[in-house]
Amino acid sequence: MRRSAVRELLKLTLRPDLISFAGGLPAPELFPVEALAEAARVVLRDRPGAALQYGETEGVGELRDWIAARHSTSSRPLTRENVLIASGAQQGLDLIGRIFLNSGDRVAVQNPTYLALLSAWRPLGVDFVPFYPGNAESDDPAPSWGLRGARFAYVLPEFRNPTGESLTLRERRRFLEDLAASDALAVEDDPYGDLRYSGDELPSLFELEAREFGGEERILRTGTFSKILAPGLRVGWVLAAAPVIDRLTLAKQALDLHTSTMSQHLVLELVRRGVLEGQRERLRGAYRERRDAMLAALEERLPSTVTWTRPEGGMFVFVTLPEGCDTSALLPVAVRHGVAFVPGGEFHVDGTGRNTMRLNFTHAAPERIREGVRRLAEALAEAGVSRER
Amino acid sequence: MRRSAVRELLKLTLRPDLISFAGGLPAPELFPVEALAEAARVVLRDRPGAALQYGETEGVGELRDWIAARHSTSSRPLTRENVLIASGAQQGLDLIGRIFLNSGDRVAVQNPTYLALLSAWRPLGVDFVPFYPGNAESDDPAPSWGLRGARFAYVLPEFRNPTGESLTLRERRRFLEDLAASDALAVEDDPYGDLRYSGDELPSLFELEAREFGGEERILRTGTFSKILAPGLRVGWVLAAAPVIDRLTLAKQALDLHTSTMSQHLVLELVRRGVLEGQRERLRGAYRERRDAMLAALEERLPSTVTWTRPEGGMFVFVTLPEGCDTSALLPVAVRHGVAFVPGGEFHVDGTGRNTMRLNFTHAAPERIREGVRRLAEALAEAGVSRER
Repeated sequence: MRRSAVRELLKLTLRPDLISFAGGLPAPELFPVEALAEAARVVLRDRPGAALQYGETEGVGELRDWIAARHSTSSRPLTRENVLIASGAQQGLDLIGRIFLNSGDRVAVQNPTYLALLSAWRPLGVDFVPFYPGNAESDDPAPSWGLRGARFAYVLPEFRNPTGESLTLRERRRFLEDLAASDALAVEDDPYGDLRYSGDELPSLFELEAREFGGEERILRTGTFSKILAPGLRVGWVLAAAPVIDRLTLAKQALDLHTSTMSQHLVLELVRRGVLEGQRERLRGAYRERRDAMLAALEERLPSTVTWTRPEGGMFVFVTLPEGCDTSALLPVAVRHGVAFVPGGEFHVDGTGRNTMRLNFTHAAPERIREGVRRLAEALAEAGVSRER
Repeated sequence: MRRSAVRELLKLTLRPDLISFAGGLPAPELFPVEALAEAARVVLRDRPGAALQYGETEGVGELRDWIAARHSTSSRPLTRENVLIASGAQQGLDLIGRIFLNSGDRVAVQNPTYLALLSAWRPLGVDFVPFYPGNAESDDPAPSWGLRGARFAYVLPEFRNPTGESLTLRERRRFLEDLAASDALAVEDDPYGDLRYSGDELPSLFELEAREFGGEERILRTGTFSKILAPGLRVGWVLAAAPVIDRLTLAKQALDLHTSTMSQHLVLELVRRGVLEGQRERLRGAYRERRDAMLAALEERLPSTVTWTRPEGGMFVFVTLPEGCDTSALLPVAVRHGVAFVPGGEFHVDGTGRNTMRLNFTHAAPERIREGVRRLAEALAEAGVSRER
């Protein structure tokens, strides 16, 4: 399926008769609208000059301070010099690619991985190499990552888009060992870390590198306010060693001068008021219920020949149909039954995964999720996906 | 002077004891703060879901419609398919470079030209070729533009950054003739068009091409809300043929997914309420007064060996010192006297212009402008710039 077709798909989410599991959208009814309205009032009353004027490319200083403080640990203390505010984490990824990658470079990625990373770095002429088989597949609990010859590794450690899986602590350590033995740098992309619904928190690669691997600072880390506050503000960040932030800043200046100062000041006002923490708890509760509703409905409705992930957080469940099924061909059938998903082949860099699909569980309410899975089961039955192995 | 030094310079604008003519900043006291506060209230009350959610890469449909309608003419009717919303016009320029330019391509630019265009396209490995001598220099009222062999031309037709000069109608026609005879495409960058303080409006290249050159659609046009509403919102646009907009949209998706939907909805609410028109008239009045104050002060204070442009609009006056003077060396002297400017060499692509400087007249009030020019004259005297030819 072409990327333009995926874009068309995303537009389907606007059709009210269709239940879409296709997007990666937060629940709009849970946006902190009142708090944002109050923040807008205060920002435009108290500091309109700063919020509406051109700003420094690095971002608003106080917001960089806040992000630095929030991610500082004793082994990896951070200051604003370690933070670049970007127009969403996506822009951070784009910038990193432009700074560090050249045509022909090998880029190691989990397989499947985040589609828009592939779209951002593919025009640079890099070769994507699948470097990890996934958690459950191997007998070795932490097999080698195969980073030799790679210029860069792109890792989603928590609730990875599209599978929802996280790296175990052993896998994290093994990754860092392999990274240290290679010449590669790595970006740890963590948009979903705050959205944990079960299981224990694990240290980030960024933190673990500093704590156990002598602070080599090979890892850049991207994050975003999009999942907890609101994606429409387009405020994300990159954490890295100060000289790396300087290089990224110089590149960003030519891209868009700076990220919206109005958006940055709205975010700053929200985090100062503690809205982030409250909003995170609220979303965790609501999304946990939605995840559980989806997992239960899949269990109830789907044939035993179909398997899926059971994520501890994030926004996605990843479904695998029997070998030989093609989810791209299934999609129009599903849409006829009133439900949409993203075919999983697109997320794979090696042409595999044609029998997989990504389901989002954060956008729809539990009863819609249950109804959507029922429709999906109908579509599978019509397509002849067998009930028994 | 290095670009990093220019960045340091921009930070000087924050020192209250210094009168800075260095930035390209609108006057913050003229921002439509009340209207924006009301717009934020209405947007978050009436359509929070749309304003805070992920949006389409192309931009908010109603805002694209508005921009299309505003720039439509009978010879060049536009629809939303001809409009891409960008994170400032700067992002539009970056996107255009990424789509159309390859290493080694010749890019024809006015000389001097917009610094951040050079920064955006230089990493692509293009060669910048100065293609026009400037309005006043040549005996021919519309000399050839020398577009042969160029892949792209970048033109600022109105109140060009950094000189403040505009193209005459004859120059515009000659440009379009030369463009039609070449294989080049062109981007017409028009951030300042609404800021005219004297003289008559002329048709854009985009319009003139459609009206007189058979609608070849070789011209892309960029614009922005930054100069009239507020730069901090980061909302600009690209106008082009629909297939070009499609290609730019696909590229933008990988850059930052989309421009802040919150910013777009704020702008939409403002333009629907007619704030843009009122704000434009208000700025024209205030900036005309500032331009006149600067031109009068230069006339009064500067030695007769110094010349400068007399712009009909925009934000800048461009000053030329006698041959052999070096404005980079003058800058620290000027800062000691409490005034800053941007040395003009940086805007030139051929190493010339070391004896020039750019002065911004929109950021400071008239009395500050007069005082700043007085200080500049002191600095020139100390540096030994002679009073008589």
